[in-house]
Amino acid sequence: MEAGWVTPAWYIACASEELDARPLGRTVLDTPIVLFRDSGGQAGALLDRCAHRNVPLSMGCVAQGGLECAYHGWRYDREGACVAVPGLMGEAARPSRGVPSFAVREEDGWVWIFGRPGEKPASSPFRRPDLGPGYTVVRRTVEMEGPLRAVLENVLDVPHTAFLHRGLFRGNGERHRITVRLSRLPGGLQAEYLGEPRPAGLAAKILSPSGGVVAHIDRFILPSIAEVEYRLGTEAHFVSTSICTPIDANRTRLQAVLTWKTRLPGWVVRPFLEPVATRIFEQDAAIVKAQALAVRRFGGERYTSTAVDVLGLQLARLLEGAEPDPDWSREIEMEV
Amino acid sequence: MEAGWVTPAWYIACASEELDARPLGRTVLDTPIVLFRDSGGQAGALLDRCAHRNVPLSMGCVAQGGLECAYHGWRYDREGACVAVPGLMGEAARPSRGVPSFAVREEDGWVWIFGRPGEKPASSPFRRPDLGPGYTVVRRTVEMEGPLRAVLENVLDVPHTAFLHRGLFRGNGERHRITVRLSRLPGGLQAEYLGEPRPAGLAAKILSPSGGVVAHIDRFILPSIAEVEYRLGTEAHFVSTSICTPIDANRTRLQAVLTWKTRLPGWVVRPFLEPVATRIFEQDAAIVKAQALAVRRFGGERYTSTAVDVLGLQLARLLEGAEPDPDWSREIEMEV
Amino acid sequence: MEAGWVTPAWYIACASEELDARPLGRTVLDTPIVLFRDSGGQAGALLDRCAHRNVPLSMGCVAQGGLECAYHGWRYDREGACVAVPGLMGEAARPSRGVPSFAVREEDGWVWIFGRPGEKPASSPFRRPDLGPGYTVVRRTVEMEGPLRAVLENVLDVPHTAFLHRGLFRGNGERHRITVRLSRLPGGLQAEYLGEPRPAGLAAKILSPSGGVVAHIDRFILPSIAEVEYRLGTEAHFVSTSICTPIDANRTRLQAVLTWKTRLPGWVVRPFLEPVATRIFEQDAAIVKAQALAVRRFGGERYTSTAVDVLGLQLARLLEGAEPDPDWSREIEMEV
Repeated sequence: MEAGWVTPAWYIACASEELDARPLGRTVLDTPIVLFRDSGGQAGALLDRCAHRNVPLSMGCVAQGGLECAYHGWRYDREGACVAVPGLMGEAARPSRGVPSFAVREEDGWVWIFGRPGEKPASSPFRRPDLGPGYTVVRRTVEMEGPLRAVLENVLDVPHTAFLHRGLFRGNGERHRITVRLSRLPGGLQAEYLGEPRPAGLAAKILSPSGGVVAHIDRFILPSIAEVEYRLGTEAHFVSTSICTPIDANRTRLQAVLTWKTRLPGWVVRPFLEPVATRIFEQDAAIVKAQALAVRRFGGERYTSTAVDVLGLQLARLLEGAEPDPDWSREIEMEV
Repeated sequence: MEAGWVTPAWYIACASEELDARPLGRTVLDTPIVLFRDSGGQAGALLDRCAHRNVPLSMGCVAQGGLECAYHGWRYDREGACVAVPGLMGEAARPSRGVPSFAVREEDGWVWIFGRPGEKPASSPFRRPDLGPGYTVVRRTVEMEGPLRAVLENVLDVPHTAFLHRGLFRGNGERHRITVRLSRLPGGLQAEYLGEPRPAGLAAKILSPSGGVVAHIDRFILPSIAEVEYRLGTEAHFVSTSICTPIDANRTRLQAVLTWKTRLPGWVVRPFLEPVATRIFEQDAAIVKAQALAVRRFGGERYTSTAVDVLGLQLARLLEGAEPDPDWSREIEMEV
Repeated sequence: MEAGWVTPAWYIACASEELDARPLGRTVLDTPIVLFRDSGGQAGALLDRCAHRNVPLSMGCVAQGGLECAYHGWRYDREGACVAVPGLMGEAARPSRGVPSFAVREEDGWVWIFGRPGEKPASSPFRRPDLGPGYTVVRRTVEMEGPLRAVLENVLDVPHTAFLHRGLFRGNGERHRITVRLSRLPGGLQAEYLGEPRPAGLAAKILSPSGGVVAHIDRFILPSIAEVEYRLGTEAHFVSTSICTPIDANRTRLQAVLTWKTRLPGWVVRPFLEPVATRIFEQDAAIVKAQALAVRRFGGERYTSTAVDVLGLQLARLLEGAEPDPDWSREIEMEV
């Protein structure tokens, strides 16, 4: 763990369609990285600094299948080896002239990179389970001006929805006592909400107009995935998967995949659901930013927690490479 | 003393009319503070940081007479005690869930706070003496981008008026030798200017069109008040009281109360006096900002003083909790 | 050497026409300096900080032949001695009331200052050799957001021209093997390019439409001058002298003097040459800025060099007060 995240792991660097014939500079894990496609369309990821005079390679272009620096034309292949030093007599390639490279996988429309350069990772990037036919999928990218941990806690937190998203997601009306079953997943954590009434807000009404029993599960999956799943009776199923990429200690890129199936077709639900989702993201982004600014203003976090902060504290432990508290897996009561 | 000011003392946080039904965030003594009114209209002042996830409470709202955090709805009373943790079963109040609170007094249209949290102050905020009937009162708030000491010295300095405010307050024409009588006040300092001719500038002509003998007294009063008083013959009396609030080490909010009585009614004088006062404040704000930037640029103050810097050096000593120089109370000569 | 430059040396503070009746503030060698002309028109240079309350003297004005502070009217002569303290009885001049002054020379339309205050320099500012009649001279000032060393290396570097200035200066077409003769100058370095074909770009075509043999010499002269000289056959002679002034560790003011003679009159060549020169300066400024930002982003330079970095490494040694590498003076081969 460095600066609040697990480094040897896969993160999304960009969407596939963002990476065209020009190099793309992105900061991931507080590291400037340049992405490019070689002549075969294969994506490569290098440290965004020319070995020669340290100019960002993302200012350059792709030439002869390699990444060419804009300043003196040094050229690199996908492994970061230097293949051309214009003007120089003799062979260009020398280890000292190379730049660090990152393992890349392109899957499901994302370009993933492995967080530690020079490694051949044994693991694979996160894949959402296939939900079968009939689902509508919408993607959203939100840049949150807060650290990874605060963003993940925000996505997986239930009590804030009645206040920050008042009227949109949960109301602030009648309160119900429910049970939360907390359990460990492989490489993750799960909170299952039992006895939860259908949320009173606008989003819930769109997803399940006729009401019904709610099954609600929140999950954290290492290194940076937060998933919220709702089943409202048999008619509606909604999964929001937030795949986070730490930009640096204070900024997080959140790639959300919203997947749903209701009795109504997706194209009917979508115009109602999207503005609500947009508003919720805006409110979350604003509060996470205010929280991060206040934490920096006061010189560090000074949090007080209670039993209803069910996932935030434990996912912080997992991000630090520790196990959750030994007595954490249990059932607790809370009001929603 | 911390960072250039006396901490256990009263400072103006805001004007009464600035504090309505919504919470108000203000930085005072380099500390973010939230002000709010409870259901009875009583003003409260808390550290502007929710104990839970450190979001500024000034982003919240007043609900059920308490201050409610915008994120998870934690609610606080005027003493900073936590009175609600939504979602949590059982009692909300616990010392660890509280936030520090500041003593508040609302007087003369100002909301004053005591600079040290958790204290019941024995003293009272500064009150201007009652001047009796027939006076016109105008208030001005100016944010000066300089430290408290530089702002106070600026307000109480005489020689700069002939240069920085040339033509407005004092001219740069014929010079007169006068006597300055320096003396100690309880919790303050006084400089009395004897034999001063009526200032030649525009402001002086407005206040006393027919000229006359001038009585001019400048006062510093701890922790942060600078007062300039002029009597021109028997016809005109003018008092400018500048009550300063340090925002941080480099910014000072100056609340000026201009009070005057002349042979002419206040509504006649005001349209002439106000633009002159505005211009003087602008010139002072610009020079104090330039001074502060230069001091930071060079890594600290490197001042040279002379005998005509009569109050600035000594008020700095009082701000540090020290006494004025033992031989300071005396009469000196200067030219104006 | 401090922060990348030689301090006891002459630098251009401003052009003569920039300094009129008002004082001019300039940062040179990371030091705020105020320039002004006394009643005789003689230029003076003082530290830009009033000895009294540290306000920048560049906010003031020239009065009675001295530089008068805008705040309290303290006045200084060209040697930085305080000659007036308004309000004070008795003599103004005292050593503690003075400000440091810099030696000044005004030559060839430039105001030069010596980089160390309080010194009477034995040396003189750099003068370009007189090229005789028939030359056209154009001056350009460019502020480069990079350190002195990177700017000088950029001006004197050959390989980058085929990439950064592709199509303007050198093309990226057929490559030629040439010889570079490296030699020491008094207080400088020289690289002579032998066998170089006429550059293929637009600038070269303008200077020498009929082609011909090229003589090309690049020179570095301490403390901060970079000169590029081209002779194309007998018909064209072009000298670009870049006199640099470090503003601070990350910014450099480049005063370029472009001098040329061709078969065509200067007024014919100029409309073609100027837009090309402007574009080349813009490209260099952009890449030097990107390089400087990346170096700071990564916490320092991490350069890899090759044999074709002929002058950059050695001029860095001279800036540090060292000698060039002992085996540096030799002939090498490179491709252009």
